[in-house]
Amino acid sequence: MSHNTFGHLFRVTTWGESHGPAIGAVVDGCPPGIGLEEADIQAYLDKRKPGQSRFTTQRQEADAVKILSGVFPDASGKQVTTGTPIALEIQNTDQRSKDYGDIKESYRPGHADFSYDAKYGIRDYRGGGRSSARETASRVAAGAVARRIIPGVKIRGALIQIGQIKIDRANWNWDEVNNNPFFSPDATAAGHWADYLDKIRKSGSSVGAIIEVVAEGVPAGWGAPLYGKLDQDLASAMMSINAVKGVEIGAGMGAAELTGEQNADEIRIGNDGAPDFLSNNAGGVLGGISTGQPVVCRFAVKPTSSILASRRTIDRQGHETEIITKGRHDPCVGIRAVPVGEAMMAIVLADHFLRHRGQIGV
Amino acid sequence: MSHNTFGHLFRVTTWGESHGPAIGAVVDGCPPGIGLEEADIQAYLDKRKPGQSRFTTQRQEADAVKILSGVFPDASGKQVTTGTPIALEIQNTDQRSKDYGDIKESYRPGHADFSYDAKYGIRDYRGGGRSSARETASRVAAGAVARRIIPGVKIRGALIQIGQIKIDRANWNWDEVNNNPFFSPDATAAGHWADYLDKIRKSGSSVGAIIEVVAEGVPAGWGAPLYGKLDQDLASAMMSINAVKGVEIGAGMGAAELTGEQNADEIRIGNDGAPDFLSNNAGGVLGGISTGQPVVCRFAVKPTSSILASRRTIDRQGHETEIITKGRHDPCVGIRAVPVGEAMMAIVLADHFLRHRGQIGV
Amino acid sequence: MSHNTFGHLFRVTTWGESHGPAIGAVVDGCPPGIGLEEADIQAYLDKRKPGQSRFTTQRQEADAVKILSGVFPDASGKQVTTGTPIALEIQNTDQRSKDYGDIKESYRPGHADFSYDAKYGIRDYRGGGRSSARETASRVAAGAVARRIIPGVKIRGALIQIGQIKIDRANWNWDEVNNNPFFSPDATAAGHWADYLDKIRKSGSSVGAIIEVVAEGVPAGWGAPLYGKLDQDLASAMMSINAVKGVEIGAGMGAAELTGEQNADEIRIGNDGAPDFLSNNAGGVLGGISTGQPVVCRFAVKPTSSILASRRTIDRQGHETEIITKGRHDPCVGIRAVPVGEAMMAIVLADHFLRHRGQIGV
Amino acid sequence: MSHNTFGHLFRVTTWGESHGPAIGAVVDGCPPGIGLEEADIQAYLDKRKPGQSRFTTQRQEADAVKILSGVFPDASGKQVTTGTPIALEIQNTDQRSKDYGDIKESYRPGHADFSYDAKYGIRDYRGGGRSSARETASRVAAGAVARRIIPGVKIRGALIQIGQIKIDRANWNWDEVNNNPFFSPDATAAGHWADYLDKIRKSGSSVGAIIEVVAEGVPAGWGAPLYGKLDQDLASAMMSINAVKGVEIGAGMGAAELTGEQNADEIRIGNDGAPDFLSNNAGGVLGGISTGQPVVCRFAVKPTSSILASRRTIDRQGHETEIITKGRHDPCVGIRAVPVGEAMMAIVLADHFLRHRGQIGV
Repeated sequence: MSHNTFGHLFRVTTWGESHGPAIGAVVDGCPPGIGLEEADIQAYLDKRKPGQSRFTTQRQEADAVKILSGVFPDASGKQVTTGTPIALEIQNTDQRSKDYGDIKESYRPGHADFSYDAKYGIRDYRGGGRSSARETASRVAAGAVARRIIPGVKIRGALIQIGQIKIDRANWNWDEVNNNPFFSPDATAAGHWADYLDKIRKSGSSVGAIIEVVAEGVPAGWGAPLYGKLDQDLASAMMSINAVKGVEIGAGMGAAELTGEQNADEIRIGNDGAPDFLSNNAGGVLGGISTGQPVVCRFAVKPTSSILASRRTIDRQGHETEIITKGRHDPCVGIRAVPVGEAMMAIVLADHFLRHRGQIGV
Repeated sequence: MSHNTFGHLFRVTTWGESHGPAIGAVVDGCPPGIGLEEADIQAYLDKRKPGQSRFTTQRQEADAVKILSGVFPDASGKQVTTGTPIALEIQNTDQRSKDYGDIKESYRPGHADFSYDAKYGIRDYRGGGRSSARETASRVAAGAVARRIIPGVKIRGALIQIGQIKIDRANWNWDEVNNNPFFSPDATAAGHWADYLDKIRKSGSSVGAIIEVVAEGVPAGWGAPLYGKLDQDLASAMMSINAVKGVEIGAGMGAAELTGEQNADEIRIGNDGAPDFLSNNAGGVLGGISTGQPVVCRFAVKPTSSILASRRTIDRQGHETEIITKGRHDPCVGIRAVPVGEAMMAIVLADHFLRHRGQIGV
Repeated sequence: MSHNTFGHLFRVTTWGESHGPAIGAVVDGCPPGIGLEEADIQAYLDKRKPGQSRFTTQRQEADAVKILSGVFPDASGKQVTTGTPIALEIQNTDQRSKDYGDIKESYRPGHADFSYDAKYGIRDYRGGGRSSARETASRVAAGAVARRIIPGVKIRGALIQIGQIKIDRANWNWDEVNNNPFFSPDATAAGHWADYLDKIRKSGSSVGAIIEVVAEGVPAGWGAPLYGKLDQDLASAMMSINAVKGVEIGAGMGAAELTGEQNADEIRIGNDGAPDFLSNNAGGVLGGISTGQPVVCRFAVKPTSSILASRRTIDRQGHETEIITKGRHDPCVGIRAVPVGEAMMAIVLADHFLRHRGQIGV
Repeated sequence: MSHNTFGHLFRVTTWGESHGPAIGAVVDGCPPGIGLEEADIQAYLDKRKPGQSRFTTQRQEADAVKILSGVFPDASGKQVTTGTPIALEIQNTDQRSKDYGDIKESYRPGHADFSYDAKYGIRDYRGGGRSSARETASRVAAGAVARRIIPGVKIRGALIQIGQIKIDRANWNWDEVNNNPFFSPDATAAGHWADYLDKIRKSGSSVGAIIEVVAEGVPAGWGAPLYGKLDQDLASAMMSINAVKGVEIGAGMGAAELTGEQNADEIRIGNDGAPDFLSNNAGGVLGGISTGQPVVCRFAVKPTSSILASRRTIDRQGHETEIITKGRHDPCVGIRAVPVGEAMMAIVLADHFLRHRGQIGV
């Protein structure tokens, strides 16, 4: 993809900086006639919204979305999409007035400060500017639109690892995900994480995490080999999220350790007469095309680089210095990445649904 | 990206099936005036070529590339690129005449047979058709062109894991890579792999692998946030390779287990006056933009799904059946994925070099 | 191009309907470090703004643009671009409350009412919705940004024909263009047009026009044959403007009447040692690449379809009916198309400048 | 569009130079299951083929197309598309061995020699290289594929003007088009053209022409406003053809001279109960979307710049010189542009058909 646009037929363009007046997205290519209210989008933004537990940043943002175009009442008075671009806008309201002197002149290790400066020669350093995780609100908003056009598909994400503490897959319970502040499908792991993150948080440190997103109800046939593969676009989508360093489909990196007998998912005919795969190492994708199994994607989020420990770095003039990143930060930014991962899954699937329908006609 | 084209300014379009008359690539957007002979490309194709050891498929393909357009002698008589599209073509010569009855009617587990049929209703089943790893020869050819336009960048790949046997990073020696049939940077691991793969091969089984590709000499500043990030495009590129199920940048999936203190790469000024990162968990990319450190990308390749064991599957009519995949196959297709990974790294970097030069002007 | 985005490296995405809360554009790919204030953009919007003479619609719109992202003060405190997407927004303020009953149910001949309904099954009928010429304000705003990145290029447009009354090219005076309400380079023609348009306006009719846009200072070499030709993208850009039915480069449609001797522009060496073309039938483009001559593009705008005469049409239910389009309309929408044409020329040239710099490196 | 690829879902990438070993196209995004034999394509290539009358170049090219990928026998044994890229290749066979000394060093006025050199610093000067009209054979081949996916649409082109001699529209007879060597729908005009072109040809001169292409059977609803309008893409497509300097839709440049009453096409209900437009000044497109009327597009082709008269020019070193272009050239290259224009119409419509189906789902 290119620059700040993602997608081919269903296209999302985002704009905005962390401490500018607003952020937003233009969603283009949405089919017409689909019911879309601000509330449909707001529900997902509220999942991502900061300040909802002590484990996320204390920045307070209403994250109230406005739809500025692309919708209109249909004959029954219900607001629906018109097929024209949908402009979504979220005001920034809690850009705390503060002294940015430190990060203005010095590069925070692990942040994009250095690389943005190297590329552009200038950066909006306030809160990370364009490279801030705040941009992911635009993704979540666009993802909410994407979900509306693939109604038969159920997309759910969960946090499955924080630091070295993994969930127990035997305990997986989707209903549990919204019962704890971690989107954990395993209540026991959630308890361990709470203890662990309290320590991390109080010490001013941070830690990484792994998210798993699963899409059920994707029919066989979506994807566009060889350079628009469904899993390729998922990898692209997830790696485009801030702080993501790895992406896996199905067996993922672990596929390296399997033999052909272990890996290849055998097929039978289910009671419903449809193909029934006996395992899902493929993660629902073979040859870049969906198989009808659940599409399973995982990604790893690195620890927030804003920590209280003093770190060695350099300043813009090339002098060695040290830096401590104060401010309101997520001890584990991976938590809030769950709804973001769901949104990107929705965007990729919506795009491939339209592309498939275009080429194949069903 | 879309369909069968990859890249934005440096664009590669591939075509061709495993058992058709030929395969090829059109390389578009290449700068003019760059020396390019068929031999420059052939050298890389020869690295990927099958049949070079007992550990790869015994299919014999000369993989001789022809340049059909886009080059012309310059004033000195040296053949150079002209800026117009470069058509590369490779004849298929060893499409063995055989009975494809089995795979024509039944879906090989782990292969794209089922999903291609689900999407298109028809597939060229001979040798996997379009979904065959044979297509990667086109990638390697295009990658050889890509390398020519980023001459200061050194791109090298290595196999670092087969099955559960990993290299010892303390033994890493790039010179060793071309001394063994595995592209292993660790001679000891190569020995273990030989023993292990002989067993796998003789039993008609297969196994997965992990490849690491490193690009040195990439200057800081390449990448196009937020949806054309350098690491995003690398993830897209690697996941588009056949059989790849996971992609990592820098610390990769392991970033989940790190704390902020462990992860964020501190910066000093080196003896040469340039920024000197004290570690490279970032894999050379921060905020989607290169930092000047080596760009490090890993990907996992699943085991070849063509194995001698009988596997449960279904046929096109939806009947349950079993299948054994005879033929000449790679016991570890990950080996030959090393030059393919290098090629995709080169293609992504060439594209981002041109895009960076376009937007920034340096 | 695709959907609501135009351009390849310099990309403009527009959104918004005539009577929605706002319209806007996201300008992506702009190089960093370029001075950009709202006033730089406003100057061009004011040229396009309605209600400035009796010859344009009496709708009153301040057309005040806001820059919501992508700029930041540089070290000297001057506001410059940062290389990130520039979101531009213009509030709609004069959406007159009125009864849209007529055009809600019936299709105005010559308007997009029928075709939008045929495609989408729904349309925002208020003031033409997405198909309104109001969208061109977004183009003008984006074009103002485009101009900033090709500072050596001078782009000027003029109206050269209204109805059957053409300017006399012997009278061409660029300084005259801003002295009359028609952007006419010929004061005499402007006088004739005023008389003619007063009649048209008073009778509730409308009339077409031809605009010529000239870019001076474009160096030789911009363009990307064969499917990203400079003139091809100009044709695409101009034809994308509302109501445009024809586009010409250089000699245009008249080239059909020329012989080879008349058409091909001979070349000499000028006093400055540079190539000096003796004519410009090519309109500054040969083989899709600029020659260094002025780039000359013309386009025809059809008459506004909103007229007071009763017209035969059908309604949404397929019944025959008649319609009179009341409201505030331009008797010659071609007048306000002059700054729009300039903007599209700027956008195309900015895009090709960046693409050329990317591929060639100068 | 970008570089050497045209289209969004139905994408055509062409490659090759006039005097290289071959030229070709990769057609990507074609739906599966569509019957496609080489003969289906050859029929259209034969229409464009040179040397069929004394009014076109005497270069002899078989223009025999080969399909190298993307097709396979279906269950009934009929060769059909598989949904994968279709590689088309045409050998160059009559690259006459000759001395290119003149055009190697000097720029032929009206040709792309100067601009290619200005951009790339090098060019394949043999027969015009990449900028040769020979590339249009690839377009015709791709267009033949495009026609197969919009079977209800009838696309026909005709020559309507050579020099100042126009057809009489009252004489328009589509059956006549293939009865004369000019694709003239007016037998009388064809006679006049024969006389006129004989003079032009014998004097070593050349002349321009206008082509009209009409697509019947396009349903209402195709097109993607605002920057992927159907007429915009047609303008882009036609202007990308060699030597084209102007493009018109419907009333075209003449729309400038119309009043609103004259221009806007009134609508009634026809005997078949469908909307019946009383005129077609719109050329079948309103607001960028098809109306169901015939899509009418015209374009002007400039005279061949290769003429026998001595012309003033400069050489690569910047010295003034004169040049005579010998060789086998078309006295009116517009004649052979008729099948090329048809092909581009087919490509644009096929692309928009798939895009429409993708977004709307019908």
